Amino acid sequence: MTMDGETRRERDLLGEMDIPRDAYWGIHSRRAAVNFPISKQSVSPELIHAYGMVKLAACQVNRALATWESRKGEAIEQACSEVAEGKFDESIIVDALQGGAGTSTNMNVNEVIANRALEILDLPKGSYQVISPLDDVNLHQSTNDTYPTALRLAAIRLIEVLEKDIVALQEAFQAKEREFSSIVKIGRTQLQDAVLTTLGREMSAYADVLSRDRWRLYKTKERLRVVNLGGTAIGTGLGAPRSYIMQVTERLRGLTGIGFARAENLIDGTQNADVFVEVSGLLKAYASTLVKISNDLRLISSGPQAGFGEITLPPRQGGSSIMPGKINPVIPEAVVQSAFMYMGYDQAITLAASSGNLELNPFLPLIAHCLLSGIGKLSSASKVLAEFCVKGIKARSDEIGRHLEGASAIATALIPYIGYEKAEELLLFAKEKGSTLREAAVGLGLLSDEQFTQAISSEAVTRLGTPQE
Amino acid sequence: MTMDGETRRERDLLGEMDIPRDAYWGIHSRRAAVNFPISKQSVSPELIHAYGMVKLAACQVNRALATWESRKGEAIEQACSEVAEGKFDESIIVDALQGGAGTSTNMNVNEVIANRALEILDLPKGSYQVISPLDDVNLHQSTNDTYPTALRLAAIRLIEVLEKDIVALQEAFQAKEREFSSIVKIGRTQLQDAVLTTLGREMSAYADVLSRDRWRLYKTKERLRVVNLGGTAIGTGLGAPRSYIMQVTERLRGLTGIGFARAENLIDGTQNADVFVEVSGLLKAYASTLVKISNDLRLISSGPQAGFGEITLPPRQGGSSIMPGKINPVIPEAVVQSAFMYMGYDQAITLAASSGNLELNPFLPLIAHCLLSGIGKLSSASKVLAEFCVKGIKARSDEIGRHLEGASAIATALIPYIGYEKAEELLLFAKEKGSTLREAAVGLGLLSDEQFTQAISSEAVTRLGTPQE
Amino acid sequence: MTMDGETRRERDLLGEMDIPRDAYWGIHSRRAAVNFPISKQSVSPELIHAYGMVKLAACQVNRALATWESRKGEAIEQACSEVAEGKFDESIIVDALQGGAGTSTNMNVNEVIANRALEILDLPKGSYQVISPLDDVNLHQSTNDTYPTALRLAAIRLIEVLEKDIVALQEAFQAKEREFSSIVKIGRTQLQDAVLTTLGREMSAYADVLSRDRWRLYKTKERLRVVNLGGTAIGTGLGAPRSYIMQVTERLRGLTGIGFARAENLIDGTQNADVFVEVSGLLKAYASTLVKISNDLRLISSGPQAGFGEITLPPRQGGSSIMPGKINPVIPEAVVQSAFMYMGYDQAITLAASSGNLELNPFLPLIAHCLLSGIGKLSSASKVLAEFCVKGIKARSDEIGRHLEGASAIATALIPYIGYEKAEELLLFAKEKGSTLREAAVGLGLLSDEQFTQAISSEAVTRLGTPQE
Amino acid sequence: MTMDGETRRERDLLGEMDIPRDAYWGIHSRRAAVNFPISKQSVSPELIHAYGMVKLAACQVNRALATWESRKGEAIEQACSEVAEGKFDESIIVDALQGGAGTSTNMNVNEVIANRALEILDLPKGSYQVISPLDDVNLHQSTNDTYPTALRLAAIRLIEVLEKDIVALQEAFQAKEREFSSIVKIGRTQLQDAVLTTLGREMSAYADVLSRDRWRLYKTKERLRVVNLGGTAIGTGLGAPRSYIMQVTERLRGLTGIGFARAENLIDGTQNADVFVEVSGLLKAYASTLVKISNDLRLISSGPQAGFGEITLPPRQGGSSIMPGKINPVIPEAVVQSAFMYMGYDQAITLAASSGNLELNPFLPLIAHCLLSGIGKLSSASKVLAEFCVKGIKARSDEIGRHLEGASAIATALIPYIGYEKAEELLLFAKEKGSTLREAAVGLGLLSDEQFTQAISSEAVTRLGTPQE
Repeated sequence: MTMDGETRRERDLLGEMDIPRDAYWGIHSRRAAVNFPISKQSVSPELIHAYGMVKLAACQVNRALATWESRKGEAIEQACSEVAEGKFDESIIVDALQGGAGTSTNMNVNEVIANRALEILDLPKGSYQVISPLDDVNLHQSTNDTYPTALRLAAIRLIEVLEKDIVALQEAFQAKEREFSSIVKIGRTQLQDAVLTTLGREMSAYADVLSRDRWRLYKTKERLRVVNLGGTAIGTGLGAPRSYIMQVTERLRGLTGIGFARAENLIDGTQNADVFVEVSGLLKAYASTLVKISNDLRLISSGPQAGFGEITLPPRQGGSSIMPGKINPVIPEAVVQSAFMYMGYDQAITLAASSGNLELNPFLPLIAHCLLSGIGKLSSASKVLAEFCVKGIKARSDEIGRHLEGASAIATALIPYIGYEKAEELLLFAKEKGSTLREAAVGLGLLSDEQFTQAISSEAVTRLGTPQE
Repeated sequence: MTMDGETRRERDLLGEMDIPRDAYWGIHSRRAAVNFPISKQSVSPELIHAYGMVKLAACQVNRALATWESRKGEAIEQACSEVAEGKFDESIIVDALQGGAGTSTNMNVNEVIANRALEILDLPKGSYQVISPLDDVNLHQSTNDTYPTALRLAAIRLIEVLEKDIVALQEAFQAKEREFSSIVKIGRTQLQDAVLTTLGREMSAYADVLSRDRWRLYKTKERLRVVNLGGTAIGTGLGAPRSYIMQVTERLRGLTGIGFARAENLIDGTQNADVFVEVSGLLKAYASTLVKISNDLRLISSGPQAGFGEITLPPRQGGSSIMPGKINPVIPEAVVQSAFMYMGYDQAITLAASSGNLELNPFLPLIAHCLLSGIGKLSSASKVLAEFCVKGIKARSDEIGRHLEGASAIATALIPYIGYEKAEELLLFAKEKGSTLREAAVGLGLLSDEQFTQAISSEAVTRLGTPQE
Repeated sequence: MTMDGETRRERDLLGEMDIPRDAYWGIHSRRAAVNFPISKQSVSPELIHAYGMVKLAACQVNRALATWESRKGEAIEQACSEVAEGKFDESIIVDALQGGAGTSTNMNVNEVIANRALEILDLPKGSYQVISPLDDVNLHQSTNDTYPTALRLAAIRLIEVLEKDIVALQEAFQAKEREFSSIVKIGRTQLQDAVLTTLGREMSAYADVLSRDRWRLYKTKERLRVVNLGGTAIGTGLGAPRSYIMQVTERLRGLTGIGFARAENLIDGTQNADVFVEVSGLLKAYASTLVKISNDLRLISSGPQAGFGEITLPPRQGGSSIMPGKINPVIPEAVVQSAFMYMGYDQAITLAASSGNLELNPFLPLIAHCLLSGIGKLSSASKVLAEFCVKGIKARSDEIGRHLEGASAIATALIPYIGYEKAEELLLFAKEKGSTLREAAVGLGLLSDEQFTQAISSEAVTRLGTPQE
Repeated sequence: MTMDGETRRERDLLGEMDIPRDAYWGIHSRRAAVNFPISKQSVSPELIHAYGMVKLAACQVNRALATWESRKGEAIEQACSEVAEGKFDESIIVDALQGGAGTSTNMNVNEVIANRALEILDLPKGSYQVISPLDDVNLHQSTNDTYPTALRLAAIRLIEVLEKDIVALQEAFQAKEREFSSIVKIGRTQLQDAVLTTLGREMSAYADVLSRDRWRLYKTKERLRVVNLGGTAIGTGLGAPRSYIMQVTERLRGLTGIGFARAENLIDGTQNADVFVEVSGLLKAYASTLVKISNDLRLISSGPQAGFGEITLPPRQGGSSIMPGKINPVIPEAVVQSAFMYMGYDQAITLAASSGNLELNPFLPLIAHCLLSGIGKLSSASKVLAEFCVKGIKARSDEIGRHLEGASAIATALIPYIGYEKAEELLLFAKEKGSTLREAAVGLGLLSDEQFTQAISSEAVTRLGTPQE
């Protein structure tokens, strides 16, 4: 927002200001840019594009109501489309953490559309007597209905991307489930050696929790699709013709292919941000899943010699300047951090949503910032986890086997064959002799080597319930 | 847990201990009680009762499999029922914040059932060679499948109570919506005077957000109903006969009338606590709703003279020892605190759930404690809000009217009748003359007194969109 | 709060109520008990005792100002003392999560003191015309100055206990530091084998972070000692004589031996709860330390065969009904849960403190509940961690040694002796031959067996910086 | 990171890659940039500059130890200085949310310094055989000691800025305290009219809590100044000569003018991130203060007609497209959002810090990101609050006076003059007659008009305690 070069003069209710002559933004944007040098982060591009789409829907309905002469309406419509297509992201200069319930973003969008429309009509920017950011671009609208609607559209679109990323991650684990289906290993509860499982079953547990995460996000979109568009300032629709209100949501549905519906109670829809807490809570559940999975991967790839060492993660970069050849689990570490970051965002979203007062929640910009950049981070994290890590996981069968044969936990798997008491004796005997359980079991004549192998085979281990029944 | 009086001797793998002769609990309970003097809070009674029910289902299936001779099975079954009915809450002596994934609660329940069954058979407590807490009461079970199942049952039951409480609160607001439907007032956005609404519409926004909260909780029970019962230690069902596994969930469904289903992947169901993060996230959304509503009630009842003063809340107790007659909004204050407390619980639940490792989450007792006592607090808060506060709300129509006639915000309501420019002139004129807008509008001949009254009537205000269209 | 049996009649500004004839509490307590059936948890005993002490200080100053005739003053003073000594905890019947900034707790304490004083004078309970809960016991006081003062006193006392518990835990680790000082082991960064350290040094890192935690809590008491006692309703001291205000804090200092000071700005001291956020933030830092340490202990005791397996924790209870002999790290698990719980409390405290409005924070009861019960849980957790776990930690030197000799990470320790390139060659050679690094190094003539031993000795490993300099 | 144009070839232990010929960054940076497309946010510039400073200190000590021939050492030193001065921020291409404990940032800095030094020597970039990012620039260092040290330096510098911002905000409130010292108004507790105060005293409470916030941050720097520089990989100093270790912290102290000290236990200093939880907890306390103050300002400026309406905030931008002339409290709203955002960051920091394992915390990059950008946001928020809001606050004396004379709360101020009973009578009388208390008091002959004025004068109201004593 530099003020060098030629300028034009704009005015609002607080007075006049110089604006760079070629800037698409105007005086409201400039005031906001001065007022909120807070986060130094831009408004989320997805929110800008969605806002363009909401403006486009409003514009089309207004045109259908014969509001403007044809060329003017056409110019405004084209400008809305271009904002929706991402052609003017650079002209949205207001800070992500702005006060004012989103008014600054709305006005920035309005000014950009007005000036772009003027440009299309070969008129100088700032000719607001011809096309006004307020009286034309914002016609029959308020920040308070368009901003939450745009936020919902942006959230839905990002969630749809995230759903795909989750599915891809799930499929990566499913491929590993098949690949590792016959690798028997020690399962651990409370980090202590427990009963047998397979490495494939471990992968299946990750795949299955991910499918729940995906389902939750899929379902929550139902609530995001209910919008308060048409409600204007507080949900009474003041200033908007009834015919406009009746059509605008349907138009948005047509334009986006997303099944938007008008809230039954627009007053409620305008003031309550509960849906964002709901969505964020479910995203937090996914973040929690990512932490669990990533920590497991870090754990079972630990070592390689002095740790669990059951798998190797694909090497992605050198890990140490001092220790030659050290490779670290950097991808799961990045994923854990993304998930922790999301948990922080969820906190901020909850605080903002619960702090609304009466007819409006003034803290929607914080919700938008945290929700949209949070979903983005979870998407990226999911992608790198699938692509750069899970797909390249290799089992260290030797290590797994060594653990298996050495572990007294294996005795539990023998109980169905030799009974609890013999199993206990066996443990004691093996410990005394310093032999493996296999050696001891065969030596004591409890089981043949083949029977032992059979008892700890993947078939035996993954069969549901006691085999002999 | 006093050790005076006569004792019996019990033993476990760590050695022997004296137990009070008449105690239903045994050595495992005592060790746990010694180990975890952490929260000094008991295990949630709902969890105990649900655990009794899970034990009952297991016992009935085991009986159907002809595990025990008839009298023994009968005694165990009766004991399970009695725990489920809440007759032995006092005998569950382990701390709510216990280590060990719930093993201590499970063993405490097992010991109580065994000893109560022995008592029924007229045998001395501790005769575990006849009825064993482990080999009989815990037969074909593990903490790792019974504890999460009991927790889900307890959560479902408490959520069902909460749903009713939310509905009652919603209905209380709906009654107020009707009662206050014709009281026109200033709506406020960002705490600044905005366009007109009615006090009834404000109440409707509370009722409607509550209906969403209720719906979310209703739906989330679907996921809570999927249980890992039968999976034993890590979900492979090791040690349990297949026929038992096939029947036990169905039996629990029959006993409780709740549509439980066995998880498709018991490994996943045993290790992942994501469902509790989901449920808790939705409860947090409700907590957020309660904060919003309660703060609104505190705000519009503020004053009574030097505040918003639009409603009075029913007086519940004296508010000050110094200021005679001061009455404070203590009920909304208590509700806000309950909601904040829940937000803290949600944090703890998320931390615990995301910290599971491999085949098990060892922190389920923390999840159980926070979830169950959290739901309880939200229920109580909802009840007192409806009963002690919302039902007794009274409108201060005089104050509301005074605000209305004095506010320049009212001018916006006149725009449909006199246009934007005249409305601006009117404002200016009224300000200069120190008169109300009504006086000015009538004086200037813009509107008759009746027309003015009509323009700010509840009909005009609540009509969707601009009236003349 | 049962109403059976004989009753007395009491009245307040809302009307009359029956009170059990022998109850020390009165009508205000009963109303509050009815209003807030929220948490079903009592007010923290430490807060009650501290409140008794604050009342005692006020009473003594009032007596010095010759407020009452001698017998009456004496009786009130004795009653205050008895509350401070914990003799009337059962009579404080109001819920921990009460609305109203603590008024209900204050009035419950006032009523108990009045009725106990009446009892001392052989008068029937309820004879408030002789000794009034308000005009006598609450004389020159308000909830708004006595409640925060009592809360600070209670917090200081509990923190002093916690400090001792932290010191004991630190000392337990220091003892282990000495015990394990010569056990060389693989250090791990990012869970991957890294350079050598000793088990003793690992213990020292726990001891040293604990000393910082202790120091922080010690210092924060400075701020807790600044009280607003004497400020009455909003900090102007309205209703209290200047001579009372000048003496009462000093009296509290004398009674408690804690260096209380009157806030310079009592208005600030009455409305701002920032100090509780500060204290809680530091307690959260300690909780974070406990999580780190406990997770490390869980990790290095994992296995015993298929995990890190470097130490054993003392067995505290049986760990499984299915897996014979399984012992779980239940103490660190309980500690982690206590710490997570505290993190939740910190959240609630922050929410409550930031939600104060104007001259008062109405949510102090939530702060009191979370802070005091939170400190208590951290104390208990610290105690069990030291007593039941750390003191009994045993090193598994064989396992540690096996890891050490097998790990390629050991090569880094040889670099100072043989250089980086030879170390790399050595690694390659050992890997090819399947021999240990020691075997390879001696075999290749790079180092003698003694030199190798020396290079990985505890002296070499713990020497700061490169040895040969 | 585009790969068009000419390239050079680099190699690391994972293989070879093309690097743009003119890029200062190299293969490690590129791998990291590919690995972590997570947050799309750059590493904090303050961290980069601080890292340059740490590298400079290390370089100077290495030069003093005669490590390099003079020209080479000079070139490296100059390159370090330039990074410290911010000349190469654009060349740090790795993502803020990187895995790997900061290795990627360290290697990016190392590569930039090496290539810039090569450039100074007129050698082509990538000539690492002459100047190596690892063997030269990283000499005697590890990510694990330099990264936390740089983070501490960056945090200290940002906190110093924040301290100044807090002081400026405090002074802005102090100016208002003086300006409004004689404006008597109703104080409110629990949002209900309570006893009298002055608008100046309200401002003083904000100023005083801010002075505590500033003090806390000032003190916490003590702990930030203790660094583990010289400890290399895990705190044993492996690979660094003792003489280097002894000098490097002192050198950093000299270069920065900040009193850094070497941690007594470098092992502890390397693995524990507790200090960041401490600092963040205190920043959160400040965030909580900002929420309280901002909400108060929103509240007492609410209306202007139908709210508290006691002050006006300076208008900063138009507030509505529908409601002409509506001005919203956008600055406090932006501040609240910044504070909520910080609370989210604090959560993420706590999660990251408590999740360290053994000898290292792999999540330091998340801590760095949240801490540094969080402090920045709090600084900006403090500045705009002081400059754009507090300095322009105007009292609405008429409204305040109207509230005052109308409020029954004023009766409390008369008690010292006419006693409690007469005050009660007066209230009743005034209510019946519909007159103000002043009219009633004078009419009943209780007080003269002058006496009444005197009783509610700012002198009477701000005097500590009851006046006549």
